[in-house]
Amino acid sequence: MAVYTEVADAALREFLEEYDLGALVSVIGVAEGVENTNYLLIAERGRFILTLYEKRVRRRDLPFFLGLMRHLSARGVPCPTPVAARDGEALRALANRPAAVFGFLEGVWPRRVWPEHCRALGGALADLHLAGRDYPARRANDLSAPAFRALFAASADRADTVAPGLARALEEEIAALESAWPDGLPRGIVHADLFPDNAFFRGDAVSGIIDFYFACDDSLAWDLAICLNAWCFEADGEFNVTKARRLLAAYRERRALAPEELEALPLLCRGAAARFLLTRLHDWLRAPRHAFSAPKDPLEYWRKLRFHRSARGAAAYGLDRA
Amino acid sequence: MAVYTEVADAALREFLEEYDLGALVSVIGVAEGVENTNYLLIAERGRFILTLYEKRVRRRDLPFFLGLMRHLSARGVPCPTPVAARDGEALRALANRPAAVFGFLEGVWPRRVWPEHCRALGGALADLHLAGRDYPARRANDLSAPAFRALFAASADRADTVAPGLARALEEEIAALESAWPDGLPRGIVHADLFPDNAFFRGDAVSGIIDFYFACDDSLAWDLAICLNAWCFEADGEFNVTKARRLLAAYRERRALAPEELEALPLLCRGAAARFLLTRLHDWLRAPRHAFSAPKDPLEYWRKLRFHRSARGAAAYGLDRA
Repeated sequence: MAVYTEVADAALREFLEEYDLGALVSVIGVAEGVENTNYLLIAERGRFILTLYEKRVRRRDLPFFLGLMRHLSARGVPCPTPVAARDGEALRALANRPAAVFGFLEGVWPRRVWPEHCRALGGALADLHLAGRDYPARRANDLSAPAFRALFAASADRADTVAPGLARALEEEIAALESAWPDGLPRGIVHADLFPDNAFFRGDAVSGIIDFYFACDDSLAWDLAICLNAWCFEADGEFNVTKARRLLAAYRERRALAPEELEALPLLCRGAAARFLLTRLHDWLRAPRHAFSAPKDPLEYWRKLRFHRSARGAAAYGLDRA
Repeated sequence: MAVYTEVADAALREFLEEYDLGALVSVIGVAEGVENTNYLLIAERGRFILTLYEKRVRRRDLPFFLGLMRHLSARGVPCPTPVAARDGEALRALANRPAAVFGFLEGVWPRRVWPEHCRALGGALADLHLAGRDYPARRANDLSAPAFRALFAASADRADTVAPGLARALEEEIAALESAWPDGLPRGIVHADLFPDNAFFRGDAVSGIIDFYFACDDSLAWDLAICLNAWCFEADGEFNVTKARRLLAAYRERRALAPEELEALPLLCRGAAARFLLTRLHDWLRAPRHAFSAPKDPLEYWRKLRFHRSARGAAAYGLDRA
């Protein structure tokens, strides 16, 4: 839960004097989110989100992220719009941290995902990819197959404490992903962390996509692989092919998938499952015992990974080659 | 930080169908607060707080608390107003917990307290006491001197691990408080937990008082003693007599303090410091190590208690008997 930094009133007032938000009515710490500190600001001129960047986000990446959100929202993607202060700058500092103010996005993230959410999400993801095509900045994906070996090195010696045999199985999986990792798929800006708690809905329509702090450029189908993992499994671990079909069909209505993207889908899904397995494993092994905020179960993604390994082509996700 | 319970969308929708709030625009988990789960609901008809009562609040006390807030807000105290559902009931259930919806209060709680805050707070506290006079329900204070011995029993054997000699010193302090505890002071409804994060301000005026879940009936001066502890010490432990003087003077403009209340003030302040020392000690000894949400330092209140023990009458708080 996400108020790591308390901001002194005087510092906040001084910070907001640089903006044209009008008088401040309320400041509410936002519980959601784990990377940064977020406050909802209710001001005379509307509702805003104030984000203070904690150490997990690299300062040098912030211009990429803020520029991307500005770029996407100018093209109609419902994402947080950076609000510039009077001097034109959106990226500022508060409480010794980089800080920025964003327009508030209405909507509610789905605690339970239905197929209609997946349909809307697929369309919104395609729109995001299309809108990102002409974003000029670049940021490498440091959480994809080429990075897995280094990521795993820090956890390898203790992986078997989480599940016996996990270290060896992951070693083999990483080697397999490295050798088969597809090259030359259509590329562009990917969100790279589009979980249900990063998507707001009003009714069945997507009203907001947030948390662009893993965004980078990579194969566009990488985002599909992440979303299939994050949105299309049931709580009992079962893959829900109806959800996958809705998600992919809606995506393809806006952006056609090339045959090589369809072919790569099972492998990309394995890779995406491995990505979250590895980062969760890392956090799991380092989490304080009995911490208030429990780390997420890495083995959830081990089970998903095994599903994708058994997938025989795109048909496993409800798709024909057509 | 305070989202212990995630509410499924369908359950929330069904819950809100009993109300006349209009369509739901946003649901935001509120980080502040440690006892209950709070969500800010932005709906067509305004902003509301949805509270889910976690286990630290006893169910049988909820009608007292909700009735009190309704009583006080009807008399102009800026406290959360319970919003009744269409059937007239404000106390309901959601996610297997008692739950209620309240009107939203504007304002910002002071991360740093200035003397002007103390002045406004003193006036607001007197107003609360006056407005509570004709509230008919009763709830005993189970966190005052008569309860200290039982409260301490659960921590006594490990108190010295927090500070050497603490167990014996507390034992003596509790005995002293028990034998000298004043009887017959003017009584009424007290808030009993009016810390700075439970008071919202707009500018220098109090715009909201929240968190009535320790409210009870007791000596009215008990609230003054709690506020002197919570509002009038600096971060370095120094007592700020200017803040105390402002707080008490503003209080006395609305409600006169009887001579016996003035006389009892140092002892009540010792008792109030002991109350927070004991509950913090209890939580400290039971907190998981390295927990995300660190328990509060009990020794802060041991230092405050020593200040009050050295106080020679009400003059130590900037007051004359006049």
